[in-house]
Amino acid sequence: MSEFTHIDKEGRVRMVDVSHKEPTERVAIARGIISMNPETFEKIRNQRVKKGNVLETARIAGIMAAKKTSELIPMCHPLNITHVRINFFPDDATNSIRMEAGVRIIGQTGVEMEALTAVSVTALTIYDMCKSYDREMTISDICLVEKTGGKSGKFKRTEDRGQRGQGIDH
Amino acid sequence: MSEFTHIDKEGRVRMVDVSHKEPTERVAIARGIISMNPETFEKIRNQRVKKGNVLETARIAGIMAAKKTSELIPMCHPLNITHVRINFFPDDATNSIRMEAGVRIIGQTGVEMEALTAVSVTALTIYDMCKSYDREMTISDICLVEKTGGKSGKFKRTEDRGQRGQGIDH
Amino acid sequence: MSEFTHIDKEGRVRMVDVSHKEPTERVAIARGIISMNPETFEKIRNQRVKKGNVLETARIAGIMAAKKTSELIPMCHPLNITHVRINFFPDDATNSIRMEAGVRIIGQTGVEMEALTAVSVTALTIYDMCKSYDREMTISDICLVEKTGGKSGKFKRTEDRGQRGQGIDH
Amino acid sequence: MSEFTHIDKEGRVRMVDVSHKEPTERVAIARGIISMNPETFEKIRNQRVKKGNVLETARIAGIMAAKKTSELIPMCHPLNITHVRINFFPDDATNSIRMEAGVRIIGQTGVEMEALTAVSVTALTIYDMCKSYDREMTISDICLVEKTGGKSGKFKRTEDRGQRGQGIDH
Amino acid sequence: MSEFTHIDKEGRVRMVDVSHKEPTERVAIARGIISMNPETFEKIRNQRVKKGNVLETARIAGIMAAKKTSELIPMCHPLNITHVRINFFPDDATNSIRMEAGVRIIGQTGVEMEALTAVSVTALTIYDMCKSYDREMTISDICLVEKTGGKSGKFKRTEDRGQRGQGIDH
Amino acid sequence: MSEFTHIDKEGRVRMVDVSHKEPTERVAIARGIISMNPETFEKIRNQRVKKGNVLETARIAGIMAAKKTSELIPMCHPLNITHVRINFFPDDATNSIRMEAGVRIIGQTGVEMEALTAVSVTALTIYDMCKSYDREMTISDICLVEKTGGKSGKFKRTEDRGQRGQGIDH
Repeated sequence: MSEFTHIDKEGRVRMVDVSHKEPTERVAIARGIISMNPETFEKIRNQRVKKGNVLETARIAGIMAAKKTSELIPMCHPLNITHVRINFFPDDATNSIRMEAGVRIIGQTGVEMEALTAVSVTALTIYDMCKSYDREMTISDICLVEKTGGKSGKFKRTEDRGQRGQGIDH
Repeated sequence: MSEFTHIDKEGRVRMVDVSHKEPTERVAIARGIISMNPETFEKIRNQRVKKGNVLETARIAGIMAAKKTSELIPMCHPLNITHVRINFFPDDATNSIRMEAGVRIIGQTGVEMEALTAVSVTALTIYDMCKSYDREMTISDICLVEKTGGKSGKFKRTEDRGQRGQGIDH
Repeated sequence: MSEFTHIDKEGRVRMVDVSHKEPTERVAIARGIISMNPETFEKIRNQRVKKGNVLETARIAGIMAAKKTSELIPMCHPLNITHVRINFFPDDATNSIRMEAGVRIIGQTGVEMEALTAVSVTALTIYDMCKSYDREMTISDICLVEKTGGKSGKFKRTEDRGQRGQGIDH
Repeated sequence: MSEFTHIDKEGRVRMVDVSHKEPTERVAIARGIISMNPETFEKIRNQRVKKGNVLETARIAGIMAAKKTSELIPMCHPLNITHVRINFFPDDATNSIRMEAGVRIIGQTGVEMEALTAVSVTALTIYDMCKSYDREMTISDICLVEKTGGKSGKFKRTEDRGQRGQGIDH
Repeated sequence: MSEFTHIDKEGRVRMVDVSHKEPTERVAIARGIISMNPETFEKIRNQRVKKGNVLETARIAGIMAAKKTSELIPMCHPLNITHVRINFFPDDATNSIRMEAGVRIIGQTGVEMEALTAVSVTALTIYDMCKSYDREMTISDICLVEKTGGKSGKFKRTEDRGQRGQGIDH
Repeated sequence: MSEFTHIDKEGRVRMVDVSHKEPTERVAIARGIISMNPETFEKIRNQRVKKGNVLETARIAGIMAAKKTSELIPMCHPLNITHVRINFFPDDATNSIRMEAGVRIIGQTGVEMEALTAVSVTALTIYDMCKSYDREMTISDICLVEKTGGKSGKFKRTEDRGQRGQGIDH
């Protein structure tokens, strides 16, 4: 039998049946990092002080992308998410911007993919906004930081255990 | 004046005007890596031999996502891309899968964002297909490998210069 | 602290958290007016008697647009609306057509934007269907007529108070 | 009065009001057949053994299309379906492939259109994947096999009564 | 090597490269039939005389679906179609309605899938509009009638050869 | 014969055939006004100075909506627009914000609907961002200011003739 829930025991993909799962509150926090050269980093920082367009545009793109998750990821259930928030943590030492997306719902299935999609599209939008200036930007460290709710209970990424989180719950 | 083409000199975001750019052939190749624990890697590999569902589903998702780029990235021009292909390069040594997306068009603007979006959604779909088994998978190294065409000419990522590429052009 | 619920106290846009709001029945009625020259008005009227295509096409477009609201309005929650209806009130005296959209749901957040979006797209479709004949048509008076349900309770537009409404509730 | 629920007694289309219907478990099973010439059938069969791309791609397309039903069918309610599965039954005797889609939800309205849309797009994708080889393929017998749940109760297609079904329920 | 153009010689799906194909005028005509019981047929016919809502709604849905083809069919190229038209041919003798969709473009790839998708969604919408009255309606005979343009030249379905066509070309 | 190009001489809606129209440069400028109470106006103004979120979010929504026009307006041709820009003109005297959208393409059909859709969704987003504070905001004066290109040539709205325009052309 397959251990991947989206694949049945005959190896066929399917949208896994969650019809009989109990709706519970579910939260997922995902993060990612975009690294760039010092000049690009400086420009985004300065502009953020003045008008904020690069990061604000990216934030809006990320929030809208969270709503599109089930159109993008073939086996994802369509969900009516009830909260999305995206935070930026620029790091001068590394000329990079860490992004964190938090998504919440009371539903039958988790919102990990919504949070990961939000972070990915946020990062891609930063790339798009700055690519005329720096084509070597790199997106990395896209991962699930933590999730709560559902049968599998609470998950916190190993490297983050013992730390105070920085997501929507805190 | 802004050095970001999507932002005008007053700091307003806009879809940059490409009306008078000449259509030329444009190719973009992007890549990314998803890392996982050895058991997950082994399962994907084995299943690929048998049915291939995880990677095939991810490949289809990536191709479809390339077509959705301008819906996801706010300032991207809508484009009728004429070719998308996604290749996987599993690496036993690191329990990771490298993905490479190649996109081609004859048009007035480049397809970097299409290639980067394809790679990102391919990776997110692998995450989704395997997340019931391994929540700590991480997506990294999403970057533009090379592009050709357009006024800015050929770009090849610094770390890849001098190497024989492995994309749709070769 | 921000008084706009979609903006947090740091000034960041977000999709406001409605996870813990109680689902209640919510109704919203919005209206709008499209004005045109007498010949265009006459053509729509006559055709309505015969085939009804202009207004029927606009009505279908408005209903479908209500379902797309959360794709269009960045901070709108995705909602599974349970009723949409659009009515037309042509006015011979002013060569204009008033449209009214009613939307209903049992949910955690209101459907004002769905009703306003339905009315707007209905009006835009009338414009599109008739623009080869009359480019000076104008859309105006798009507003929320009334809403019920939710914590903020019943709202009725000032100028409509004391009047018998003409929406889906009556 | 109209006997078509999507049309009111004045003849206007509307999205029928299901706000006050009780959520119940609802299942719908739809099927369809795509017929082709023997060579095309043989190629799909052989390839399925090797890589399975034609049918796997069609299956994924069908599952994703089920989620898009309310964008395609004007009066369909948006629904968060909780299960979709698509099965193929190739028939050597007739060089055709029967497809069956099963959809499930706990909701206020049925999922017949989701199942029929899934089957239709599955068949269209098989056509697309093979059309360079066989343009005369024909899609037929798209119909609802059975549904359960809702006020109208259980429906089973006349020609299938007395038979053991082959859908997601069995 | 694969004879299916959407599958490369390694068996991987891809969006086939049409970058270097010459744009030519391309037309595709597809048809389909929906059969129903005599009462349903009579109701649609009568209503068409009065208000036409069932068929008009289906026609609009079909036209809109043609524009969504590349979102539905995974390997379809996005295309800016320049004409869509859908005709109905009700047949009293068989209580069925034949639909014919014609699509035209000047482009690098054909519009067969757009015409077939238009016909399929037109038929599905008729089903949806009438399903409260007749759940046993069946959609059949969805096929490509003819296509012109492109390297493969003119195609006309075998059973239609020697007949005067009834599509957008005539 | 119908004088509405989207309706054929039998009264059937269709996507009008532009296959043989010559591509020319086409520009459309549309405007609209959203009126509000003085406190709401003051808040948007102040916030714009500080963070600009309400208007920036609305601007991004409007640009993205321009790209969705053919999904919203049933008979609109899908178009790859090459420029969108949205400007705001707040008016202290009337506590209102005028919006102007400019869209450009080199294509076979005009972009009036894209400009009008951009303006409408920009206004709806301002409503959404501020509605918790002021439900009586009204959207009005949505109209085409001018267009150039195409067989019908230049159009300038009567009330704007003799005035220096304030759009993307100037």
